[in-house]
Amino acid sequence: MSTPDLAAKASATSGSDTWHTTAVGSGLRSLHLADGPHGLRKQPEEGDHLGIGDSLPATCFPPAVGLGATWNPALVRRVGEALGTEAGAMGVDVLLGPGMNIKRSPLCGRNFEYVSEDPHVTARIAAALVEGIQSRGVGACVKHFAANNQETDRMRVSADVDDRTLREIYLRAFEEVITTTRPSMVMCSYNRVNGVHTSQDPWLLTELLRGEWGFDGVVVSDWGAVVDRVAAVRAGLDLEMPPSGTDQEVVDAVERGELEESVLDTVMERLGRLQERVSADTSRSPEHDAHDALAREAAREALVLLRNDGGALPLDPARPVAVIGEFARTPRYQGGGSSHVVPTRVHSALESLTGAVPGGVAFAPGFRLDGTADPALVEEAVSTASAADTAVVFLGLPEAAESEGYDRTTLDLPADQTALLARIREVSERVVVVLSNGGVVSVSDWEHHADAVLEGWLLGQAGGAAVADVLTGAVSPSGRLTETVPLRLSDHASYLAFPGEHGRSVYGEGVFVGYRYFDTLERPVAYPFGHGLTYTEFAYSDLEVTADGEDSWRVALTVANTGERAAAEVVQLYAGVEQEYPTRPRRELRGFAKVFLEPGRSERVELALTGRDLSTWDPEHQRWSLAGGTYTVAVGASSRDIRLTAEVSAPGDRFVPPLTADSTVGEWRTHPVGGPVMAELRTGMPGLSEVPEDLLRMADSMPLATLRTFGLGVTAEMVDLLVEDVEARRQAAIARGEITG
Amino acid sequence: MSTPDLAAKASATSGSDTWHTTAVGSGLRSLHLADGPHGLRKQPEEGDHLGIGDSLPATCFPPAVGLGATWNPALVRRVGEALGTEAGAMGVDVLLGPGMNIKRSPLCGRNFEYVSEDPHVTARIAAALVEGIQSRGVGACVKHFAANNQETDRMRVSADVDDRTLREIYLRAFEEVITTTRPSMVMCSYNRVNGVHTSQDPWLLTELLRGEWGFDGVVVSDWGAVVDRVAAVRAGLDLEMPPSGTDQEVVDAVERGELEESVLDTVMERLGRLQERVSADTSRSPEHDAHDALAREAAREALVLLRNDGGALPLDPARPVAVIGEFARTPRYQGGGSSHVVPTRVHSALESLTGAVPGGVAFAPGFRLDGTADPALVEEAVSTASAADTAVVFLGLPEAAESEGYDRTTLDLPADQTALLARIREVSERVVVVLSNGGVVSVSDWEHHADAVLEGWLLGQAGGAAVADVLTGAVSPSGRLTETVPLRLSDHASYLAFPGEHGRSVYGEGVFVGYRYFDTLERPVAYPFGHGLTYTEFAYSDLEVTADGEDSWRVALTVANTGERAAAEVVQLYAGVEQEYPTRPRRELRGFAKVFLEPGRSERVELALTGRDLSTWDPEHQRWSLAGGTYTVAVGASSRDIRLTAEVSAPGDRFVPPLTADSTVGEWRTHPVGGPVMAELRTGMPGLSEVPEDLLRMADSMPLATLRTFGLGVTAEMVDLLVEDVEARRQAAIARGEITG
Repeated sequence: MSTPDLAAKASATSGSDTWHTTAVGSGLRSLHLADGPHGLRKQPEEGDHLGIGDSLPATCFPPAVGLGATWNPALVRRVGEALGTEAGAMGVDVLLGPGMNIKRSPLCGRNFEYVSEDPHVTARIAAALVEGIQSRGVGACVKHFAANNQETDRMRVSADVDDRTLREIYLRAFEEVITTTRPSMVMCSYNRVNGVHTSQDPWLLTELLRGEWGFDGVVVSDWGAVVDRVAAVRAGLDLEMPPSGTDQEVVDAVERGELEESVLDTVMERLGRLQERVSADTSRSPEHDAHDALAREAAREALVLLRNDGGALPLDPARPVAVIGEFARTPRYQGGGSSHVVPTRVHSALESLTGAVPGGVAFAPGFRLDGTADPALVEEAVSTASAADTAVVFLGLPEAAESEGYDRTTLDLPADQTALLARIREVSERVVVVLSNGGVVSVSDWEHHADAVLEGWLLGQAGGAAVADVLTGAVSPSGRLTETVPLRLSDHASYLAFPGEHGRSVYGEGVFVGYRYFDTLERPVAYPFGHGLTYTEFAYSDLEVTADGEDSWRVALTVANTGERAAAEVVQLYAGVEQEYPTRPRRELRGFAKVFLEPGRSERVELALTGRDLSTWDPEHQRWSLAGGTYTVAVGASSRDIRLTAEVSAPGDRFVPPLTADSTVGEWRTHPVGGPVMAELRTGMPGLSEVPEDLLRMADSMPLATLRTFGLGVTAEMVDLLVEDVEARRQAAIARGEITG
Repeated sequence: MSTPDLAAKASATSGSDTWHTTAVGSGLRSLHLADGPHGLRKQPEEGDHLGIGDSLPATCFPPAVGLGATWNPALVRRVGEALGTEAGAMGVDVLLGPGMNIKRSPLCGRNFEYVSEDPHVTARIAAALVEGIQSRGVGACVKHFAANNQETDRMRVSADVDDRTLREIYLRAFEEVITTTRPSMVMCSYNRVNGVHTSQDPWLLTELLRGEWGFDGVVVSDWGAVVDRVAAVRAGLDLEMPPSGTDQEVVDAVERGELEESVLDTVMERLGRLQERVSADTSRSPEHDAHDALAREAAREALVLLRNDGGALPLDPARPVAVIGEFARTPRYQGGGSSHVVPTRVHSALESLTGAVPGGVAFAPGFRLDGTADPALVEEAVSTASAADTAVVFLGLPEAAESEGYDRTTLDLPADQTALLARIREVSERVVVVLSNGGVVSVSDWEHHADAVLEGWLLGQAGGAAVADVLTGAVSPSGRLTETVPLRLSDHASYLAFPGEHGRSVYGEGVFVGYRYFDTLERPVAYPFGHGLTYTEFAYSDLEVTADGEDSWRVALTVANTGERAAAEVVQLYAGVEQEYPTRPRRELRGFAKVFLEPGRSERVELALTGRDLSTWDPEHQRWSLAGGTYTVAVGASSRDIRLTAEVSAPGDRFVPPLTADSTVGEWRTHPVGGPVMAELRTGMPGLSEVPEDLLRMADSMPLATLRTFGLGVTAEMVDLLVEDVEARRQAAIARGEITG
């Protein structure tokens, strides 16, 4: 290829328009990017400037909140394949998804685009999507990197997160997906992390992402996330989108010597590698019919049966049913913002139920789409409900309640809806509530009016059909919660810190996000993480944990369907450790498996547990640390429904840090190398042996160097000699392979 | 005075020995410092090197936990006077107290030396002590400056606290005491704050303390807190104690030009000023008998009656009483460490009760001083209790459970004690528990076994007599909780962050410490902040809030003793404000008054409320910010027993910050100066007027500068012009006095 000049190279670092990269010379062609983590959002050429307006029809799969609730990576991979097929057919090279931020607060307006409050299930679901999309020759772009956990002040706010929390919670899923699936792109976020805009953070975009994790793709800005163009290019941002027309700043910076020209060459190389990896297959059909069926399958598995008193579900199809709620007729199936898809068709629960309930279906809207009601609507609904045994009441958040761009301030359903429910309860023998919501809603105020509650999230275009499938028992519900349903919003650890003020959001709760907080503190919740009922029962037995090399284990158990219906269980593996002052969650999800079983059948489930799963990030030494000791392995059907536990004894990484003059007397006393030396010395030190035992306890927290202040005969020279001697012994022990350092 | 040479000046920056400053030439005499925030701890000349061993006898007043519980600054001032008298009589120039750190966690081993979880009551009590001590010509030394809220790793740990939390919680009491009482000395703490050792923090010791607050006294190190000698002198630390023998480092630094010699001159000036202010009056008697009576008076007012079912207290002196528990005979009345006093005498509750209960007192120890029991002790106690109507059971923490130098890991009483209580309950008609503890203990496990619970803290040498006074009804209890008694340790906001790890303690709970957390979240507690029963009832009425100048109010109300006995009420004034996302506590203590009333009498209580009381620290603009609006003023008998509320409308400080290109569209739209300009402009901008309303909501969070990225016809030049224009208008409005900036 002919060598492009500086201006041409600089032009490669931003798009040619809102949705295309810039072609450069004969080497780089223009790539087409499009939104669409759960469905393609390709805008027609005359699209609006903000890139938010209407797009061409495409299959609307369940948003990430729904895909996550399936706990079924194999199924999600097929969704990814379908997304890739549709993108390719439309000439799209890179699909801007999946979103994989952690749900720090249930108020985040964009939670419907994210998977979970837990990084493990987030990683597994996002990895499946990436693999599926990329299997069709279309690039995937994981986003928003990183710690983009709120919409309020999203373009400026600094997520102030400590290093350990970043590593263990907010970066962990990105790390796993990037190192195992090699996505084509990473999209930086709008926000700052610890004061630095992610679009210009060299640590995040270069040291960590490329250096530690080996990412070899392209880093693109979120749309409009670039603040300082040159700083962004220097930090490792390859592509500014949409173009701000500031390529000349890049040229000037190179000419002034403030930016290495080689940085632009590297960007060109990365874009070149990317275009070789992607090959949109425009000859393929978008397969809209098959994808509609797949969207229905995914939606079925996403439905979470929260409660089912007296076997209210499945419905008896021979009996008449009253369907109440506008959302039954006009589904809420996706959220607002850049992920908004124009679907190929939409199934409403009302039409699907009407065909599936021979006993008859009567309908009343009960409230308007904006969530409000009036007396006439309510009376009509009450009268409709009176005429049937069972009322299926569709409640949920109106579309304006949640969207990209702003956060919620409450978890409550609209008051008109819960008031309607209370009226329906008075006249109905049996009440089933079906929810439509992207972020969790509180249930404490109204769920006593319901016999069964089916959480229907936002389920994509075929959600209505899937709801009918589960209500009638055509399939058993098999979704599980990927986020805790709290009793009250204020029970959440982040409540008093969200969304922050003065441009900062302080993540003071640290790693204690979601169930990690509730379970460690044993705080009551409405429904715990991992919860979800089925139409059958499962029994767990025969837990076996066997070592599989050093610091690696196989966890095996048997799960049996002991009920009357075919259904799926989501077997969850949690790990934890006991501590005097808890700095680690009581239990953390480290594996899961979704197992479909016919009645009476059982299966042996095997899950892997690694040393990394038991490790914690050590910010002091910048490493994953695995302390030797006993860890608890717990297997169950939710984080609060633990069925079997075992203990594993880990030898640990035998890491022994150096001792210094700043190390405390206590650290010296208990150090594997320094301790014996100290014990020997103490007998020979006249000052120290004078000190009574109760004062020694106090001395434990004194750095060795400070002892000289107290006239115990300890001099700076003695301390230095001691440090040198012990360090030599430590190095020798490392050389002998007894410890690591 | 003759000019001292450099070495002599340097010698002034450290002590001559553990307890004395260095005399320099004819100008500076050697001053004698001594421990003793609640009683003098002057060591004999042959004292140990660590400065922790035995001292000469002095009156042991209640430690700060007890003085705080009195909520009586006038009484505490008299204690301060007594401390000053004793110090002066013993030739002590400066008394190293009071301690005034905030009780962030109930686990802090040194909480008994601190007043409260609340800065207002801390400031009032500490100020009274300082004024009392200094009225006798002895210097007071407030400590430990600052954010020294744990003992674990105390010499290295960094208290990572955001600016607003520092200002509103951890520095607030220091600010009030230093600016209103002019203490002679401030003692820096061992720990670091946001990474910097307080002993060498120029912001803390110079900019804030001397610059903003106008402190003109001497800053002394906590004993052994200096890490880098030269950095400490440079930062504003006047005096290293005890001397580490490194004065030569100071000399060398001056000679190498790394330290201005004038810094040493300033230290000399400060020491000179200090010695002129203090004048130990060694001719005075230490008045030990009068002070013992005062210690008893203080202890009486410190006792908090937590519950009193069925009027179990006061005791009927005509009926026999079983006194159970070793602490009745051998009181726990102070904590371990540098505040440990050798008392002039000790009153036990057993001896005091024996004289005051004609019905007869039988005693059994029940357990040993270390808190443990054996079957023989238990059976003896049960048998003793069986022979009386009422058992008064003295429970508490053994001495080793709490001390300077280490933290607790639990709030629980020793299991042997609670087991003993359960046995006593089985045989007793009436059970009264008297507690001895420096930090709060949990009550949930055992308090159902008690009809009455009297919290006796650590009450100093006369505590036993005071307990007898209250049990028999000679006086009504009048203490109130200065810290919340939680249901569980894990209910505390700091639980998962205390005491931190890897050398950092992250104050992620921010300003939500103690009741600020519990009350804002409406979390249940065992006993709320400010709680305490009496032997009578009080009625509140006629709340009146009247403006007293701009942003200043007088709060008046009537409190009446409607019961049968003379007693004191602690009227508490709280302020708060409603917020969409709570970033401020629901209510914060801003005033209180202790009112003694005979039965049937009432009194008009007047409390001041200032604009500062309603303000919050604005870290962005580094100022106290008073937003205009409506605030709630609540008056009550505890933070959860609010009797009267009123609203005040504050005009606020009318502070209007400048707008910049980085200000968001939302900030521009709602800005008092920029908003009207924007509204006018919008109609004229073709790009902007194209954008639909729902996208404008999303645009609200976009910095103005980023609009150029989206091709709306907004250019960088337009933004710059707009910023300039609006800033000119803002300056004009400031000049006209319409706003402040």
